Amino acid sequence: MTDFNFWSPTYFAFGKGKEAQTGELVKRFGGRKALVHYGGKSAVASGLIERVKASLAASGVEFALLGGVQPNPRSTLVDEGVRIALSEGVDFLLAVGGGSAIDSAKAIAIGAANGGEWRRFYAGREVKVRPAIPAALPVGVVLTIAAAGSEGSTNSVINLEPQNLKRAAGGDILRPRFAVLNPELTASLPPFQTACGLADMFAHLCERYFSPTKDVSLTDNLCEAVMKTVIEESAKVMADPRDYQARANIMWAGTLAHNDICGAGRVQDWASHGIEHELSALYDCAHGAGLAVVMPAWMAYVHKKDDARFARFARNVFGVGRDDSDEAAALAGIAAFRKWLKGIGLPLTFAELGAREEDIPLLVKTLNLSGNTLGGFMPLTDKDVEAIYRLCL
Amino acid sequence: MTDFNFWSPTYFAFGKGKEAQTGELVKRFGGRKALVHYGGKSAVASGLIERVKASLAASGVEFALLGGVQPNPRSTLVDEGVRIALSEGVDFLLAVGGGSAIDSAKAIAIGAANGGEWRRFYAGREVKVRPAIPAALPVGVVLTIAAAGSEGSTNSVINLEPQNLKRAAGGDILRPRFAVLNPELTASLPPFQTACGLADMFAHLCERYFSPTKDVSLTDNLCEAVMKTVIEESAKVMADPRDYQARANIMWAGTLAHNDICGAGRVQDWASHGIEHELSALYDCAHGAGLAVVMPAWMAYVHKKDDARFARFARNVFGVGRDDSDEAAALAGIAAFRKWLKGIGLPLTFAELGAREEDIPLLVKTLNLSGNTLGGFMPLTDKDVEAIYRLCL
Repeated sequence: MTDFNFWSPTYFAFGKGKEAQTGELVKRFGGRKALVHYGGKSAVASGLIERVKASLAASGVEFALLGGVQPNPRSTLVDEGVRIALSEGVDFLLAVGGGSAIDSAKAIAIGAANGGEWRRFYAGREVKVRPAIPAALPVGVVLTIAAAGSEGSTNSVINLEPQNLKRAAGGDILRPRFAVLNPELTASLPPFQTACGLADMFAHLCERYFSPTKDVSLTDNLCEAVMKTVIEESAKVMADPRDYQARANIMWAGTLAHNDICGAGRVQDWASHGIEHELSALYDCAHGAGLAVVMPAWMAYVHKKDDARFARFARNVFGVGRDDSDEAAALAGIAAFRKWLKGIGLPLTFAELGAREEDIPLLVKTLNLSGNTLGGFMPLTDKDVEAIYRLCL
Repeated sequence: MTDFNFWSPTYFAFGKGKEAQTGELVKRFGGRKALVHYGGKSAVASGLIERVKASLAASGVEFALLGGVQPNPRSTLVDEGVRIALSEGVDFLLAVGGGSAIDSAKAIAIGAANGGEWRRFYAGREVKVRPAIPAALPVGVVLTIAAAGSEGSTNSVINLEPQNLKRAAGGDILRPRFAVLNPELTASLPPFQTACGLADMFAHLCERYFSPTKDVSLTDNLCEAVMKTVIEESAKVMADPRDYQARANIMWAGTLAHNDICGAGRVQDWASHGIEHELSALYDCAHGAGLAVVMPAWMAYVHKKDDARFARFARNVFGVGRDDSDEAAALAGIAAFRKWLKGIGLPLTFAELGAREEDIPLLVKTLNLSGNTLGGFMPLTDKDVEAIYRLCL
């Protein structure tokens, strides 16, 4: 176990109809005028945006609106949000949506608190230490997609235009002040997006689980606990998308997969996320779908570094390989992981994702390691990354 | 899964030497003059109190001192602390010690913020809803015993004199602002106190795990994850009390066992804690030792209510009963639990604890159910409680 600081001050209001408390929560956490930032049709069509507006009004919170967030959220909309926030005197960002709306709101929150500056806090693999964020407006969340975990996390990832570079900012200052988690709001999510969310939260656990740090039995067991839940509940939600209890367990699992309760005190990996971000930046595919392609390929490439860990993953998470050697169990675990991903309808190859072999050199180039390595479990060079992309073919 | 609100805003600074940051943390969380509240000899003899004082001074934080906290912390010392806090103009409570120092500091924090009033916020089983606490000074913690989880919890239990009644207060307002967790500070703890701590954290998980709430796979898996860690690491720490990594896993497990990350969204039990508190109030025994006696007796009395749950506990936590019927597995699990407790040196009976059969009517009387029932898993009457005490003989 390594030394760590852990601070997860987000207030979670979890359950049916909890979005009715949104106005009260914005006020409690200091907001007097909120920018409500959301995606598109479904939040409006379902009446959610109207309910949120009514709740804000009932609490005397003023607000401005900015919809139009897309998956892989774009810098152009962030710029627009910052302009609105500054000109309207907004003091609170309220994201209504999934990871894209939240990450975009976090970027606006940075820009609005730093005289419009936000891009310089977003960096890629070319830097070893991300720039510290001196200030950010408080952010609140009404979550509609269980996936990214941004409702409780320190991170934000934005697609920087016009180059389409996915770059990240991070820091405790980006932890949302509150998050409303009503599993009912996720019940209408189509199966493919539901599956992408499951892959994303599972990946957040893998990025923490595959660690070189020794003597971490508590967080090992916690990672396995949440992984097992995601697998157990995935079968229920794919069979019945309206299964409230499955949606509830999945929603809270998505938050705990990424608020770092499962990662405190251990070196983490994050290579697969880096490798995937280039795919969703270039092809605008769903991040979770990209992870379904990348993660098993990453596993196949790195497992020999620590077959015992991969064997533990196989045995404790997927219940396979109990009587096998560690190496055989490791391979059985990776196969079981692929089978699970395929079973919930996710792609496993470049072709299924819509990615192209001939773009691999470009993907490696835009990842821009600049001589740094990628990942904490097994540090990867450009050459390793290229090999992993080729394992996705 | 039930609806819930979850808020755990405590900042945890975990690792070697982290107590050097105490002054900085008090200042960060708004303290200008702290009352340093601690136990006795060991914190002074080890030099910890001097290090904490130096850290406060280096950050320009003034302080007053109040030592002398005993296990099963006494109301008389709380009263003294409140007097000091009010007369010295203290604006922050800094507990240095284990659960007793923290719970006592929380009580002083209530009294100092409510014109001296704190007792009326402490209640027993005679009330169904605890009185809400309108205000409390902020509390910080330097933890020296991994056990009670009070460093991250909403609770405080005080032994009210002269009647020796253990009564509890609770609310998010009692969550400490920060906790310094340095596992090195627990390395000198004698084996018996170490074992009492292990039993206490295991009990905090059982109180949450044995629930009538259905469809709680995430928190079921989380409870089992932390329980398994406590068992795994207990063997290491009993073999080598100076095993830093075992102490580290245990310390963080103690916090997560009681900050409610394992209990959110489920009805909890807490009958064993109620039944035990009467023992430690009357005999001044260690709370963890009392729990080692009470919990298996409670299990033996209630398991038939839901043998499937007890069978799951047996199989997933202790790895016994896999091929048995649920009822047989339940019994095997309870036996394995007793064996584990005995193996780490804890008492299992009234006689070993120093409790007396003839006091049972008095214990039931001071528990003071007043016609209410006790416990969320299986509501217990006075008669049930008496039967459980008799199973401890």
